[in-house]
Amino acid sequence: MPAKSGVNFLSPQGAIAPTGTWSVGARAGDFVFVAGMRGIDPASNKMLEGEEARIRQAFTNMKTIAESEGAGLSDCVRLVVYVTDMAALRPLVNKIQEEFWTGGPYPPRTILQVSALNQNDIFEVEGTFYAPQRSR
Amino acid sequence: MPAKSGVNFLSPQGAIAPTGTWSVGARAGDFVFVAGMRGIDPASNKMLEGEEARIRQAFTNMKTIAESEGAGLSDCVRLVVYVTDMAALRPLVNKIQEEFWTGGPYPPRTILQVSALNQNDIFEVEGTFYAPQRSR
Amino acid sequence: MPAKSGVNFLSPQGAIAPTGTWSVGARAGDFVFVAGMRGIDPASNKMLEGEEARIRQAFTNMKTIAESEGAGLSDCVRLVVYVTDMAALRPLVNKIQEEFWTGGPYPPRTILQVSALNQNDIFEVEGTFYAPQRSR
Repeated sequence: MPAKSGVNFLSPQGAIAPTGTWSVGARAGDFVFVAGMRGIDPASNKMLEGEEARIRQAFTNMKTIAESEGAGLSDCVRLVVYVTDMAALRPLVNKIQEEFWTGGPYPPRTILQVSALNQNDIFEVEGTFYAPQRSR
Repeated sequence: MPAKSGVNFLSPQGAIAPTGTWSVGARAGDFVFVAGMRGIDPASNKMLEGEEARIRQAFTNMKTIAESEGAGLSDCVRLVVYVTDMAALRPLVNKIQEEFWTGGPYPPRTILQVSALNQNDIFEVEGTFYAPQRSR
Repeated sequence: MPAKSGVNFLSPQGAIAPTGTWSVGARAGDFVFVAGMRGIDPASNKMLEGEEARIRQAFTNMKTIAESEGAGLSDCVRLVVYVTDMAALRPLVNKIQEEFWTGGPYPPRTILQVSALNQNDIFEVEGTFYAPQRSR
């Protein structure tokens, strides 16, 4: 729902359901901010099995939210990738991003190995998107 | 002070004092970017005792800076929460956010367990706010 | 190249070359988002030797990309610094930022100790810049 300032908090169809004090995304002006997404199946709200499947699902979850505001992956202007094992997971992330962005251009990315993610997950991705409003 | 580009670096009354090469916040266009805030008492510049008190103070510090530019918590479009113990602190963060946002909607959030924070602190929060300028 | 939405993915002269599925930066509206930069020599694409030299080069790499879109360091509105040793490296980061920003004002900053960076590096910095477009 839009706040008085004009921020629009998102809860689009097909997105995961928040399990705490957060929304999956927000639009403010021409930008769409998506919460950190993990490889959770929106149907069951459970983490997928398998590293590749889980990373792929996380990107899909992010994409679903961005698309609900008219932004595609080519409108992603900032990506932060959090992994719990850089050596093992960075190559998988690169491979899966190639699938999603099909040759690029790719968004600016920062990739970090952190100590832990929620639910002892292995991968999380946070994206910011540019989606100019049609009527200003 | 405004730079030639129009960035306005913030040092509002009631905010903590920077202890290094950083400002507590900046306005650029319709957005307000707040530096990572920890549970430091602006009066003494010391960390509060107690996990809950410290987390609460960090959110208060962030809020003070946002409000100095006319943004409330409902204008927060992006939140990144850094903790040093996910299992112990995430429930506290959720509880305290409920207090601050009183039922939501909540901003998109990414929560991460990192190896360490400055001064061996346990919690830090970074927020971005949307505060459209009155006269453009 | 500009996508249909108007995002401009950057690959300026003098910047490091991406080694994976990412661009070094992107412009969207009045903001320039720079990917996490490390102390890599753009000429050789190798990490510099020495902590100070490496940190300095990372800031230089970020600056090169921002400047290609008309943004200077005084237009930086958000900085996230990732180190692998807070106690050892935070003082160096402060010292080097003093050199680059020559007395400030400094951008809002969040500094974090993470478990690991790509190539077992010790420092990475991610910056967002405000660079209003001339003709709107």
